[in-house]
Parts: sequence; C-alpha cells; structure tokens
Amino acid sequence: METSAIRMFGVHGLGEVQPGDDLAGMVAGVVRAAGEKIGENDIFVIAQKAVSKAEGRIVRLDSVEPSAMARRWAEGHGKDARVVEVILQETRRVVRMDRGILIAETWHGFVCANAGVDNSNAPPGTVVLLPEDPDRSAEALRRRLEAAFGVRLGVIVSDSFGRPWREGLTNVALGVAGIEPLMDCRGQKDDFGRNLQVTVIAVADELAGAAELVMGKNRQVPVAVIQGLSYRSEGSGRALVRAPEHDLFR
Amino acid sequence: METSAIRMFGVHGLGEVQPGDDLAGMVAGVVRAAGEKIGENDIFVIAQKAVSKAEGRIVRLDSVEPSAMARRWAEGHGKDARVVEVILQETRRVVRMDRGILIAETWHGFVCANAGVDNSNAPPGTVVLLPEDPDRSAEALRRRLEAAFGVRLGVIVSDSFGRPWREGLTNVALGVAGIEPLMDCRGQKDDFGRNLQVTVIAVADELAGAAELVMGKNRQVPVAVIQGLSYRSEGSGRALVRAPEHDLFR
Repeated sequence: METSAIRMFGVHGLGEVQPGDDLAGMVAGVVRAAGEKIGENDIFVIAQKAVSKAEGRIVRLDSVEPSAMARRWAEGHGKDARVVEVILQETRRVVRMDRGILIAETWHGFVCANAGVDNSNAPPGTVVLLPEDPDRSAEALRRRLEAAFGVRLGVIVSDSFGRPWREGLTNVALGVAGIEPLMDCRGQKDDFGRNLQVTVIAVADELAGAAELVMGKNRQVPVAVIQGLSYRSEGSGRALVRAPEHDLFR
Repeated sequence: METSAIRMFGVHGLGEVQPGDDLAGMVAGVVRAAGEKIGENDIFVIAQKAVSKAEGRIVRLDSVEPSAMARRWAEGHGKDARVVEVILQETRRVVRMDRGILIAETWHGFVCANAGVDNSNAPPGTVVLLPEDPDRSAEALRRRLEAAFGVRLGVIVSDSFGRPWREGLTNVALGVAGIEPLMDCRGQKDDFGRNLQVTVIAVADELAGAAELVMGKNRQVPVAVIQGLSYRSEGSGRALVRAPEHDLFR
C-alpha cells in the first residue's frame, strides 16, 4: 500500500534581519548549520517580515506626519496616528473601517487588516510594510537559494492574515516563485466518473499555512522547508488575488 | 542547531465508504496495511465526505420536493432544483445569493458555498450533507482510533471551503477533537520584548490545509496523518466559528 509523505522543518537561529542583509545567504547558512539536506523541488516558505526587513521596507514613525483622517481614527480607537497614516498610505481602498478594525485592500490587491503594516517584531519606533512586489521578492530569493543549493526550488513569501467568518489567522502566500499556486482539478473525474465541479485548490496558501506549524509566531523561525511534494513549477502569487469584479465580499 | 520537523502522509486504499461503515476501523486497517506506525499525539485529518457517508448523511434526490424558491433559483442558474432545495434546508441564513453562487450560513454556523451540500464523489442521484455535529464526529473517531492504536490522538474532520478576496479553496477544520484549534500568542513577547498584538493562529485550519497536500482531491485519499507537532490537547471546532456579532462580513 503506497503512502505519499511530506516532511517539513523550521529553520532556527537566523537572527535579526537588517536592511540590506543577504537573506537567502543567511537562510542557506542556517540550513547547512542544522545539517539539513536540500533536495530538488524543496519549497522554502519565508515569513514576509524577514523579507520586508531585508528589503528595507521599514518606516521610522518619527518621519511620519499624520493626516487629519489618520488622527481622527487614531483618537477614536486609542491608536498611534502615525501608524494609521502609514496604513492609509499602503491602502488602495478601505474595505471595512469599523469597531477599531481597519480592513484594507493594499496596492497589491491583498485584503487584510491594517494593509499588512505591523509593528510586532519591528525595531522600536518603526513599522514594517509588506514587500513592494512579493512575487519579485520570492523570485529573487529562489534564484539565490537555487544557486546556493544547486537544485531547483520553490519559494513562498508568506504572512498571517485574518479572514471573515472564522476565528484566528492563517498563514497565506503573498509571493510565489516556481510553484503553481492554484491546483485546478476541474478537468478531473470523481470516484463515480463525473467531472469535479468548482475544485480549484489554493495549494500555495495551504503550503504557507502548513509552514507556520513549524515556524512559530514569537520565536525567530521565519523560514520553513517543505520536502516531498509534487507540484507544477510555474506560477505567481498574483493568481491568488481574486479580481474585485468576481468578489461578492468587497 | 535544532530544527522542529513534522511529517505527514496520506492514507491510500480506503475504498468507497458506505452508510454504517466503521470508518475508524477502516482507517486503522489501511494505516496498518501501509506499514505506518502511529505514535502518541499523532493527528488524523479525515475528509468530511467520508465521515458524512459513514454517518449516512446522504440524501436521495428523488425523495426531495423543491420549494418555489428553490425552483426559481435553479431555473435562473441551470441548477437542479432538488439540490437547491436540500441546500436551503441546510441553511440557517443566506449570506449571498448572487451570480449563481449561494453562500450560506449552515445550522452549525459555518459560512460556505451551498451550505456544504455536495454531489462530487456522491453516489449518483444523491447529495452528501455535512455531518450533523462535526465535533461529535471527530470525538467519536478519536475514541475509536485511540482504542485501535493504543495511543493518545487528535482528530480533525475537514472540508474545502472558499473564502472572500482570494482564489481557490483551502481545507479547513469543521470538527476537532483533542486539539486546541486556536493558538493564542497574545501573552507572548516579540523579539523586542513587546507583547504580541492580535495573534491568534488557527492551527486546526492550518493542519487541515496541510493535510490536503497529501490527500489529493480526486483520489481516494480521504485521510492524512500528521506526526511530530506539539499542541494543546483540549478544544473543539466550534471555537473556529466567529460569532456573527464579531463579524464585519455577514
């Protein structure tokens, strides 16, 4: 009887990432130090926070001048008006602004709390933005990691997003390189020989979520490696963003 | 340098599940036949469809008399009025009914397409409903699997749901037994010693999503086992359902 097995592990000991750091080089170093072997088609899931820091996507709050709107929202909800200002600057459209919660559509098209702007694990007095182009970040990391390990790889840049209707955050894929993020089963047959209906699986999001199980939120484990998955090797994270005209909830 | 590793595998060869089948016994049989060892705190993720079939949650469409509302919606969108009628019977509240898509809040509180009613992998002329009480299903499976393997286990009953804003379905946890589904990091410190803010991770949903990577949609792999995770052992899937009064998107 066959089984299909996947193994994943978290990469510990990376240390604090600074603007300009060679993140892929640091990751390769700790993977080697841990004695882990990287094989063909292994997938690296890397937390957005580490990627953003390496890319210098950090804003010093003492450089921010809040708008009147940012001040009003901040005062009404006990928030830092400078942080709210940065959130609004990262926002293409406000989806909900209610009960102290700001759900924004970012310039990338992601819909998430605070437009992905976050001060947890950020140096004091700063906030960290999402990468400017997470697919580009993923692709750059993939090239460097492939060169370091000499094998073909997939890379996902991930972040934890909330969602309607269900409690808790789940890790999702923002940027994707070398992996088709959606697995389209619509041409396939079910066990009774009928065509499967609406069955497109967001594999990249499930990979990002799986990775979080070994990453941990408060420890310095911003990288996970997933081994043993068969997947199609072309695709980008943009395919995971639903077009507004097909969305019933914006 | 330490790494934390998780292994997961899909359980092949289960065969078609019939009402009244001893699903836990069937699962234990194929796991043993595959030569896999089950250890303390391993987690079984079991697809809702198999659980529902074993529980007899199957409706024969020739027994269904569609209401006028079901007929109107079915005619407008090329659907089977009897299937629509079953969906409406499983629905506590319609969340969206637009462009041929019916997003419903089920009697359990889940918000999903078609109230979870599905005819893929259902015997011809039938549809399969969600389990009546997925937590109860998970707990019953857990007791039987623990007895079969002689170790403490966690069980998740999962299904693939769509979500707003992002393309594709992801597998989520409907019923949970022996696992705390939400990991609350709010008391913990970040790397700079500050309290982490809104950081409650939906671990059970990430486990369900991870499991789908080895389950496959069209193959008869409705069970996955996840090994090597440390987790809190008390909890139910109900905790994952956001109360309507805290939801900005209903």
